[in-house]
Amino acid sequence: MASDVKTRRASAPAEGAPLEMGFLASSVGYYLKRAYLRVYDDFIVTLADLQLRPQLLSVLSLIVDNPGIIQRALARTLAIERSNIVLIIDDLVARGWVTRNPVPSDRRAYALHATPTGRQQCRIAIGRVIQHEQRMLDSLSESERRELLNVLDQIGTVEPGGIKIPRGM
Amino acid sequence: MASDVKTRRASAPAEGAPLEMGFLASSVGYYLKRAYLRVYDDFIVTLADLQLRPQLLSVLSLIVDNPGIIQRALARTLAIERSNIVLIIDDLVARGWVTRNPVPSDRRAYALHATPTGRQQCRIAIGRVIQHEQRMLDSLSESERRELLNVLDQIGTVEPGGIKIPRGM
Repeated sequence: MASDVKTRRASAPAEGAPLEMGFLASSVGYYLKRAYLRVYDDFIVTLADLQLRPQLLSVLSLIVDNPGIIQRALARTLAIERSNIVLIIDDLVARGWVTRNPVPSDRRAYALHATPTGRQQCRIAIGRVIQHEQRMLDSLSESERRELLNVLDQIGTVEPGGIKIPRGM
Repeated sequence: MASDVKTRRASAPAEGAPLEMGFLASSVGYYLKRAYLRVYDDFIVTLADLQLRPQLLSVLSLIVDNPGIIQRALARTLAIERSNIVLIIDDLVARGWVTRNPVPSDRRAYALHATPTGRQQCRIAIGRVIQHEQRMLDSLSESERRELLNVLDQIGTVEPGGIKIPRGM
């Protein structure tokens, strides 16, 4: 932790000189954000010609893998706001990648299915994402990658009181 | 990776049933985003009464630890857009936590210093953030935490071609 006395510099840092990073040097939140933004930026560049953001591909891939899924199950699983999930589905329907049909047994629900084009675009995009993630994780061994996923999963499911919430909820 | 044949469900998932996660189950980008958002949300709650976002605290703490630092060094180190760094500094100056004075030798630069109140608020906030991060990482051992920071640092500094950029640039 940054002790005000210990880590403060005596004089202004010279232009281009490395900074005293203080508490940021041991802040997991800081490194998490840097890593997330780096991966996000590279994802956008990698899939620029398909015009796919991570969230759009996550939704598409869940529809491909769970035919007939309804919007609120998608929103809950991916922690997307109700209004946002509607916009994302609208986008996928407009692209002709997804169809949305009423569920006879639940008049507020719509069942989602990927079209053949949607499935094909999803396969292409996932192939690219796998290459992009390999590039991002190039310096890690296979066991380090698994350990990273495991640790991130633990952090992503901590509740404020420290209680784990089940995956996929 | 999600093989279209292997992982696609035969029928619509029942309401509340866990979904087939397909390629997301092994996507580091997906887990990184979940972990980042979880940590971000908890940070906001933890520091709500101080009205401090992570970015604002990062900037304040670097000014505290590097007295006389200029705006563009802050922006470069934290990868913040020029227009955003101006808004953040304006906010810190308006709070009375930071002063901004012209640099005689460089008429485009302003030297930033934390006020006593700014330093005090920074210490209080960092104390809270350390507790918040301990809560987030409760399930990890000390060596697992260090390993996580190390791996996130590697990911955060990968360039598209796979070249590392130096920390603090």
